[in-house]
Amino acid sequence: MALVERTDEGGIARLTMNAPERLNALSDAMLAELQAAFDAIAADPGVKVVILSGAGRAFCAGHDLKEMQAGRQSEDRGAAYFGDLFGRCSRLMGSIRALPQPVIAQVHGIATAAGCQLVATCDMAVAAEGTRFGVNGVNIGLFCSTPMVALTRAVPAKAAFEMLTTGRFVEVNEAVQIGLINRAVPEAELAAATEELARTVAGKLSGAVRIGKRLFYDQGERGEADAYALAGAAMVENMLMRDTAEGIQAFLEKRKPDWH
Amino acid sequence: MALVERTDEGGIARLTMNAPERLNALSDAMLAELQAAFDAIAADPGVKVVILSGAGRAFCAGHDLKEMQAGRQSEDRGAAYFGDLFGRCSRLMGSIRALPQPVIAQVHGIATAAGCQLVATCDMAVAAEGTRFGVNGVNIGLFCSTPMVALTRAVPAKAAFEMLTTGRFVEVNEAVQIGLINRAVPEAELAAATEELARTVAGKLSGAVRIGKRLFYDQGERGEADAYALAGAAMVENMLMRDTAEGIQAFLEKRKPDWH
Amino acid sequence: MALVERTDEGGIARLTMNAPERLNALSDAMLAELQAAFDAIAADPGVKVVILSGAGRAFCAGHDLKEMQAGRQSEDRGAAYFGDLFGRCSRLMGSIRALPQPVIAQVHGIATAAGCQLVATCDMAVAAEGTRFGVNGVNIGLFCSTPMVALTRAVPAKAAFEMLTTGRFVEVNEAVQIGLINRAVPEAELAAATEELARTVAGKLSGAVRIGKRLFYDQGERGEADAYALAGAAMVENMLMRDTAEGIQAFLEKRKPDWH
Repeated sequence: MALVERTDEGGIARLTMNAPERLNALSDAMLAELQAAFDAIAADPGVKVVILSGAGRAFCAGHDLKEMQAGRQSEDRGAAYFGDLFGRCSRLMGSIRALPQPVIAQVHGIATAAGCQLVATCDMAVAAEGTRFGVNGVNIGLFCSTPMVALTRAVPAKAAFEMLTTGRFVEVNEAVQIGLINRAVPEAELAAATEELARTVAGKLSGAVRIGKRLFYDQGERGEADAYALAGAAMVENMLMRDTAEGIQAFLEKRKPDWH
Repeated sequence: MALVERTDEGGIARLTMNAPERLNALSDAMLAELQAAFDAIAADPGVKVVILSGAGRAFCAGHDLKEMQAGRQSEDRGAAYFGDLFGRCSRLMGSIRALPQPVIAQVHGIATAAGCQLVATCDMAVAAEGTRFGVNGVNIGLFCSTPMVALTRAVPAKAAFEMLTTGRFVEVNEAVQIGLINRAVPEAELAAATEELARTVAGKLSGAVRIGKRLFYDQGERGEADAYALAGAAMVENMLMRDTAEGIQAFLEKRKPDWH
Repeated sequence: MALVERTDEGGIARLTMNAPERLNALSDAMLAELQAAFDAIAADPGVKVVILSGAGRAFCAGHDLKEMQAGRQSEDRGAAYFGDLFGRCSRLMGSIRALPQPVIAQVHGIATAAGCQLVATCDMAVAAEGTRFGVNGVNIGLFCSTPMVALTRAVPAKAAFEMLTTGRFVEVNEAVQIGLINRAVPEAELAAATEELARTVAGKLSGAVRIGKRLFYDQGERGEADAYALAGAAMVENMLMRDTAEGIQAFLEKRKPDWH
């Protein structure tokens, strides 16, 4: 059975991490399957939105610690393996940001360490009440340095620092308040609520959303003047799309757009 | 009648967008008048604070879509016109940031697309209860890419992403929570509350506020060490102002400063 | 008596600003003693966490205005002195960020101007209910430009702009909401609550926390790709620590780590 299952419906690709007995740990194999799944979706014009979820009782508990310990058996005590591992993991996170389509994390149970990093990295996140979030590697002596990159770009500095140095778990209400997730719903409604958000985004003009997501992270790293130069060019590109001309015209004529 | 009306009182310049039948859309003419108004204020030593508001039932509904559609009639399908339009709009936003005086948005009804960008761009914002904010261009196929530049510098990443890709409207309580506005008041108190905030700022030493606003956005784009170097120089410049010497002395002597 | 008292217990160094009659103003002497205290701690492998607090009825009321006014008596009206003063103050703030150990502000009474900057600069902050925070230099004609550098990196833009240009005091609930502090507790519980947080952090593997804090501010100023490159290297360095190998192994074996 695949470690990452993909099901598509109505332009929404659902990726389910499927190693419930290991709390969907990001093993070498899981990282490879996730990378392959996102690479395939990046090239798939039929996908408008992606949902990332986990099978079993947790979203994702981070790296596979057994596998990491086994990596120490080499002459360099694992240095090359670890460098490669974190490089592959960071590449996966970058691929989610760079994916043309928005990615929504559907989170339940626990999202810890690199699992919490996945939540911070996804463009949006919906969580079940009762979910606990933590960058708790510090508890076992491994500071969550790579998760920090995503976390500090999502939540205020002091909240991030506390989570990272105390390993404290955060409940959903606090996660909403600090901006780590968009909203929380009862667990029984989690899949439906996430799908509703996905359908809302999938109902938009796909080309416009792609322009927007590409710009979102790119302009965010630049000074305001550069950001506006990029954004202005994006607006022109968007305006020249046939479906956008139709979308605006339909709005002015108070009718539904005829989008293909 | 002018599209932008200006009234001055007590060092406070109030700019009112006045095209209520078009929900104060940022037409070519409106952009030109706003630009001229801010340019005049930038050179006016008598103005200490600016309030930007809208006549009629909305603050501002964004670009003028009819005018934009008409722009498609050229040989290049509007490409040059759109590039120029978004350049003029971004220049206006930059002029608000670069204005020596603080600018407060007084917001009611709706603030959508470039209208929401104006709110995000102004230094502070007070809104009437019931106001709705949205970067909802995606609903008609035109992603709010330029509004994104201002929005992502005001609110947390996941909140911004959701607003941009879903087009969802945000009410005042959520707008306060995510940092898009400073506060909400009953609509009947909106003008008075905004003016009270403006008077508070106008009552400060104008030269000090100008130093502070100039630094606010400039240092924010730099690394911390560079930011401190700039800020240290600003503090020295500020300390050497005659009125600052008097302000500090008055404080030490527990009396009112004799400011000119 | 020293202006800064240091007491150490269980790997926690408590620094107490001790000029209560001047509300612990950051005089030349206080700045020098704080700098010396942090420099000593930076080189002290026995310290795992630092608590910074103030004696008397306030945490810290900012710069020493009497001393600053006296600095005007030179031929250059104080220009060189002020430049040096703000340079020393900014260096102190930078030393807190660069300190290998986390620094927690324990705040009560008031934290104003450079005192509020200290709160924003410390990695975490716990405050007593009733504490008031302000960057209120604008009230006496001296815009809080250097405090702005720390404040704008801790709280949302519009909240920071309002505090800086109005001088308005912020109470603890709002301070938590905007991210200026981590939490507020009744004044009677302030020291105990801060120490509990400090003990939690002190209980982690010190080498891992040092790697994490160093990276926290460094990666935050970089683009995401650069940040991940740094973070990946930090994770490898961390994984190769003997105590981290033991920490992970102990976790897998469901026992306490044997850390030295």
